[in-house]
Amino acid sequence: MNHDRTRFALTRRRWLAALGAALTLAACAPMPGVPGADPLPSWNEGPAKQRIVDFVKAVGTPGGKDYVAPAERIVVFDNDGTLWLEYPMYTQVLFVLDRIKALAPQHPHWANQEPFKSAIAGDIKAALAGGEKALLELVMAAQRGSTGEFAAVVGDWMAKAQNPRFKRPYDTLTYQPMQEVLRYLRANGFRTYISSGGSVEFMRPFAERVYGIPPEQVVGTRQKLLYEVKGTQSVLLMQPQIEHVNDGAGKPVGIEVLIGRRPIAAFGNSDGDLAMLQYTTTAPGLRLGMIVHHDDAVREYAYDRESPVGKLDKGLDQYRAAGWTLISMKYDWKTIFTPAR
Amino acid sequence: MNHDRTRFALTRRRWLAALGAALTLAACAPMPGVPGADPLPSWNEGPAKQRIVDFVKAVGTPGGKDYVAPAERIVVFDNDGTLWLEYPMYTQVLFVLDRIKALAPQHPHWANQEPFKSAIAGDIKAALAGGEKALLELVMAAQRGSTGEFAAVVGDWMAKAQNPRFKRPYDTLTYQPMQEVLRYLRANGFRTYISSGGSVEFMRPFAERVYGIPPEQVVGTRQKLLYEVKGTQSVLLMQPQIEHVNDGAGKPVGIEVLIGRRPIAAFGNSDGDLAMLQYTTTAPGLRLGMIVHHDDAVREYAYDRESPVGKLDKGLDQYRAAGWTLISMKYDWKTIFTPAR
Repeated sequence: MNHDRTRFALTRRRWLAALGAALTLAACAPMPGVPGADPLPSWNEGPAKQRIVDFVKAVGTPGGKDYVAPAERIVVFDNDGTLWLEYPMYTQVLFVLDRIKALAPQHPHWANQEPFKSAIAGDIKAALAGGEKALLELVMAAQRGSTGEFAAVVGDWMAKAQNPRFKRPYDTLTYQPMQEVLRYLRANGFRTYISSGGSVEFMRPFAERVYGIPPEQVVGTRQKLLYEVKGTQSVLLMQPQIEHVNDGAGKPVGIEVLIGRRPIAAFGNSDGDLAMLQYTTTAPGLRLGMIVHHDDAVREYAYDRESPVGKLDKGLDQYRAAGWTLISMKYDWKTIFTPAR
Repeated sequence: MNHDRTRFALTRRRWLAALGAALTLAACAPMPGVPGADPLPSWNEGPAKQRIVDFVKAVGTPGGKDYVAPAERIVVFDNDGTLWLEYPMYTQVLFVLDRIKALAPQHPHWANQEPFKSAIAGDIKAALAGGEKALLELVMAAQRGSTGEFAAVVGDWMAKAQNPRFKRPYDTLTYQPMQEVLRYLRANGFRTYISSGGSVEFMRPFAERVYGIPPEQVVGTRQKLLYEVKGTQSVLLMQPQIEHVNDGAGKPVGIEVLIGRRPIAAFGNSDGDLAMLQYTTTAPGLRLGMIVHHDDAVREYAYDRESPVGKLDKGLDQYRAAGWTLISMKYDWKTIFTPAR
């Protein structure tokens, strides 16, 4: 992990000063949910929190030079590593591997065929040794059937699967400070969208329950769909073919397809989010670009330039010149995860 | 044109009776916009209007057996022939032909190359003689550049072009009774979507102004988009490649991609809308499927089974068994177009 030491030294100092001030003020702090209360109580005072609050105030002030009409207050969030845990492996990949195991009895030939053989044996490393090609093969085998059936499969898995380190269901490992940002922005007239590299059909079944983000506000990687009529029923069948990869330069495209407007704010955490951040912030008017930096090895994980998942390399070089703000999980966040349910 | 004579005989009688009642009641009719006022004043009393009103009441009655939560009150409308005039030629095709003329000086070789040569000469019939292949070639040549530039081109054309028969801009030739349905449904918690065979990048620039339908609620045929950074700007460039055809079985797919929910109501007018109507109505719960029938040769046009645009053939055979209701433009609508601006 490469620290951006100058920035953190400054931040830490500023942050410690702010902490002192916060302790002094604690007695008279307003209650959360009460008008005038801190809308981001899990955030330490510092430049990241301040930038979010200043932005929301500026675009929400009628008559102000940065005012933005509510209809244009579109904010996009990456999911993996930005709204929930992604390390050491994306949750969707863990789901896919479990799904392959569950489907194995119907596919006896998988027992002798990689990457299925290793996936069935629970050897994640070997299963993914074939890189993107192997992963795609597993995803296409695991994500089939009608959209409705698949949503039920995702729901069942989510209710049962547990993260081994935190011993909690994956959909409870969302970041409390980001949940507060979602609610804070919505309370200020924003529409919150997910724009993730994950499959849209994987995310939609839980996005509303977990984040308050309805299906029509979830942008993701898409498989081809086929409309089929079965008797008096009609269904959409997920085909083993990727139609859109919602990562990198695919993120602005996916956003245009679903929204048709350029967002005014974007939150990401990896190099796969840079095009989305750039698309959001290279347009006239006040814009907000934020990058979650995973620098907390104790409470979560510390990774960036060399990471196999959620790599943040070019982003660390570019964020300053682009006018984006880094969010330090270690220094900016009082707490990491939402309370266990 | 093939009339469905039984139905129309009945409708006409019922409609004339209703008209008599309406004349009697005219003096004490409440004002539009006032609570209790007729939400569909341009509709004659009859089964079509009644079905819409009954449906809206049923799904909006809390505790009722047909109640639907507002988030699920999704209604989809075809555009050409359902919300606005499509005969004798789709407005987008007229735009494309004009755009080819405007671009011709930059493409001197078009002067000797069909279908461009005929398009430049203003010979629509000859330009489209090559069928779908020729049309696609024209569309791909006309619809280029960044999404922002293209939206401006569409806006300019719409402000200048005139329909030769009605001598009005094309975007004023929307159906007043359908504008009332859009407003009535929105006033009852529905979200109104367009799902059209037209290009999404053609419709989005005017859908909000003309129908009150924002860009994120417009589903259409899509060209491939390419994200490009030019200096400090970033744009989405329309590529000469169709990614999704939003017609027939493509309509349910386009709806799933953008909305991720199954609509509970659908309005169409041609066989290209049948899959959308079917997808909407073949699911549990109260559903509404409506087909606009172009049977008014005097005030608009009369066409269905044999028409080159907006053909309604299978739909006329199937609507009754499917439980859909035909809207007669001649008998159900007091007025056809929105007032000239």
